[in-house]
Amino acid sequence: MKSVEEALETVLRVAQCLPPVTVTLQEALGKVLAEDIRAPDPLPPYPASIKDGYAVVASDGPGEYPVITESRAGNDGVGVIVTPGTVAYVTTGGPIPDGADAVVQVEDTEQIKDVAVESQRVRIFIQTSKGVDIRPVGCDIEKDALVLKSGERIGASEVGLLATVGVTLVKVYPTPTIAVLSTGDELEDPTTRFLSRGKIRDSNRAMILAAALQQHCKVLDLGIARDDEEELEKILNNAFSAGIDILLTSGGVSMGDKDFVKPLLEKSGTVYFDKVCMKPGKPVTFAEMNSRPAENKPVNKILAFGLPGNPVSCLVCFHLFVVPTIRHLSGWANPHLWRVQARLLQPVRTDQARPEFHRAVIKWKVDDGSGNPGFVAESTGHQMSSRLLSMKSANALLELPGTGSVISAGTSVSAIIISDFSCTDIGKSPLLSVMASTLQGSRPKEVTADV
Amino acid sequence: MKSVEEALETVLRVAQCLPPVTVTLQEALGKVLAEDIRAPDPLPPYPASIKDGYAVVASDGPGEYPVITESRAGNDGVGVIVTPGTVAYVTTGGPIPDGADAVVQVEDTEQIKDVAVESQRVRIFIQTSKGVDIRPVGCDIEKDALVLKSGERIGASEVGLLATVGVTLVKVYPTPTIAVLSTGDELEDPTTRFLSRGKIRDSNRAMILAAALQQHCKVLDLGIARDDEEELEKILNNAFSAGIDILLTSGGVSMGDKDFVKPLLEKSGTVYFDKVCMKPGKPVTFAEMNSRPAENKPVNKILAFGLPGNPVSCLVCFHLFVVPTIRHLSGWANPHLWRVQARLLQPVRTDQARPEFHRAVIKWKVDDGSGNPGFVAESTGHQMSSRLLSMKSANALLELPGTGSVISAGTSVSAIIISDFSCTDIGKSPLLSVMASTLQGSRPKEVTADV
Ligand code: NWS
Ligand code: NWS
Repeated sequence: MKSVEEALETVLRVAQCLPPVTVTLQEALGKVLAEDIRAPDPLPPYPASIKDGYAVVASDGPGEYPVITESRAGNDGVGVIVTPGTVAYVTTGGPIPDGADAVVQVEDTEQIKDVAVESQRVRIFIQTSKGVDIRPVGCDIEKDALVLKSGERIGASEVGLLATVGVTLVKVYPTPTIAVLSTGDELEDPTTRFLSRGKIRDSNRAMILAAALQQHCKVLDLGIARDDEEELEKILNNAFSAGIDILLTSGGVSMGDKDFVKPLLEKSGTVYFDKVCMKPGKPVTFAEMNSRPAENKPVNKILAFGLPGNPVSCLVCFHLFVVPTIRHLSGWANPHLWRVQARLLQPVRTDQARPEFHRAVIKWKVDDGSGNPGFVAESTGHQMSSRLLSMKSANALLELPGTGSVISAGTSVSAIIISDFSCTDIGKSPLLSVMASTLQGSRPKEVTADV
Repeated sequence: MKSVEEALETVLRVAQCLPPVTVTLQEALGKVLAEDIRAPDPLPPYPASIKDGYAVVASDGPGEYPVITESRAGNDGVGVIVTPGTVAYVTTGGPIPDGADAVVQVEDTEQIKDVAVESQRVRIFIQTSKGVDIRPVGCDIEKDALVLKSGERIGASEVGLLATVGVTLVKVYPTPTIAVLSTGDELEDPTTRFLSRGKIRDSNRAMILAAALQQHCKVLDLGIARDDEEELEKILNNAFSAGIDILLTSGGVSMGDKDFVKPLLEKSGTVYFDKVCMKPGKPVTFAEMNSRPAENKPVNKILAFGLPGNPVSCLVCFHLFVVPTIRHLSGWANPHLWRVQARLLQPVRTDQARPEFHRAVIKWKVDDGSGNPGFVAESTGHQMSSRLLSMKSANALLELPGTGSVISAGTSVSAIIISDFSCTDIGKSPLLSVMASTLQGSRPKEVTADV
């Protein structure tokens, strides 16, 4: 039996990054950039004011000056030169007229009200110096600077940067299209009000569709397939020619006489593994389908996961194997799930043989019990693989070794993050509570804080 | 000037949870539940097999037995009674026929091939005991159990739970609709290839629309408003009657003679604050608009934020004030951003007066430099509020006090999480590395790990 690490390695070796596509800015959100982005012009493109105030010749100093122009944007003040003894009104972001070399903010000035005089005059209270409150050309972004690199993920600030440099169509790696199928004669649609004997509602399909949507994938709902080889084969074949990248089935992969998923995957592809040493999720199956080039259509590689039917096993395997696959296909440089250490709030008994992925809620504490800040982990309770309530609110899977021992409370264990941390006991800002701590090793360059 | 805490408190006092709506399962994803959900039937609804194998009378023990029925789903095996000396074939999840009290998995049996005999026979190798590999009725979910509580957020496993209990239409708090407007004569659309003098591209609108989409809001793009009071008023009035919950403008809130946003918000609403003691983001303005009941339309409260024009200030204020507002409107019990402690990788100089939100990339390290696992924080460099590159890849805002001192490297500071942690240096699973640690205080009940 493969270990989880070996199985994941296999999957990521077989999986390939999808070919890049060009999309709009909003569609690019959350995706990985597939090209380098350079700035076609500097930012600011002109010397710009940092304040609302007056562009001055710094050496002039305090005194009363005529306001010879107003410069807010565009061609304001073009051709006008601020010579010693004159000033220009500027607004934040406005171009600094030629001749001026500093800005004095309005708060340090006073307008002189004199209706008799046609031109405006202003009193400057302070002595400034050259360059003050002016952003020189390119001070935020130099012309031709590499603003974003291929491989970086696009969030809100990256969308802002793309807009800044005028890139509104951008090459990114698309996210995969995922088809989801439930299998099993016992399954009824969730809309079923009254269950007849021997029937349960299909929870895996809605759950896995939701999980795929959370990973920003496009999804295709294939419904429920009965435990009938021919019906199942027809559904799978239709799915394979529907332009999908990943097929996810649940159920039908263990030892039953009607577990047809694996034989069918073998028939039209290569099965890389059909068992992994883990709990829950042992019967998880992974295959690559033979490509069937449809006319005029680019051949796309289809990866298929036979997820176990037990709802918890199904979702755990989705996180451990499918999420990294989605990330890999979507161009993430590091597709692995993120791990932290967390201290157990209660003792936990481990499995005799298989490494276990124990569902837990982890929270950050200013004191995790050791006197230091850190994560604490609370078990979601009874860990039976059919008990979906053990996944409720879980944001981490604790990685416990298959040693059959009891891990005591307070032990620090590895926790795989599977969801946002939404709540915590720190609601209020500990704003002024910078905690003292020892100075470490080398002293890198200090970062100064600007306006 | 209000502190950030006071300002946020004001906003959250004025903001109100949106009225619940009924949506489909997939639309409910990411939203907060507005009703309690109970199970109408137990799960499993019948005693179900945990394995593929044979339902037996446990006391029978090893031996050769006739297979009197096959029970997979539905009415399989109804009316048949497994009497001592007989067994029934069952698949995982299948109903246990009456009379049987345990299941023996196929691996512990052998089918007896005997073409002469019509009925199937099987050899059972092991002695089992009562209840083994059977899930009794309601063992996962009891009938009438409270499965999900009002106020809980719906993720993939919660969608699975809703499907399990047959709830496909569900009452949730909707997410707000947000309108986004840029203001400023210097702004050009991002599609503009060549900038004429005194012009820059509008980055805030695309950025804030993206940020609102990341928070699962519906968005309305109001374009760019010139620095013209009448034009701005017309745009705002149209927005107010478009069914929005939140209006976000950027620019036009500082000291310029054409900063019309605040006066206009004052004209049609109540301005609660127009300055906050923070860096960046000082001129951030918050108002509640007077409701104007349109005929036959429910009055909805509109909150307006005048975000500062500097791109960094704009996005920082979005995170600090608008994200908690969105969460509050969307029914989150704790709308606050999440904070952790992180150790500085380099010394940082703080502002003389205003608390600062220093952009950083935080990463989890198995050794954060103190010998313990924890977060380390790396500054994104030069922190000028016009330099959007300081937000690039940032996943945290370090809360630094306005003391004008240098905080040394290695110091633990409060970090507000503003984005997922995507990368880390721990790619491989430290699966068997449960770290020894001291046992803490009380010993809560041990959690055992089941199949
Ligand atoms: N002899 C033998 N028997 C074995 C094993 C073995 O080693 N030897 N291994 C175990 C393990 S061990 Mo585990 O992950 O380590 O806990 S899963 C696992 C399991 C996997 O079986 P599979 O073939 O994948 O699924 P099946 O269709 O049998 O369903 C499984 C359960 O899930 C329910 N279910 C299905 N689909 C849905 C759906 N859409 N919505 C809601 N519930 C659903 C379905 O009713 C049933 O109760 O078989 C077991 N049986
Ligand atoms: N006298 C005086 N002057 C002051 C202050 C003060 O105390 N006294 N405070 C500061 C501070 S202090 Mo800070 O957050 O703590 O760093 S913001 C801040 C600033 C806020 O000004 P505002 O009126 O909000 O914005 P404006 O329209 O002036 O633009 C601001 C900048 O952003 C650009 N910009 C606008 N919109 C967009 C867009 N959509 N896309 C891309 N860039 C855009 C625009 O070009 C310009 O460079 O005024 C300053 N001036």
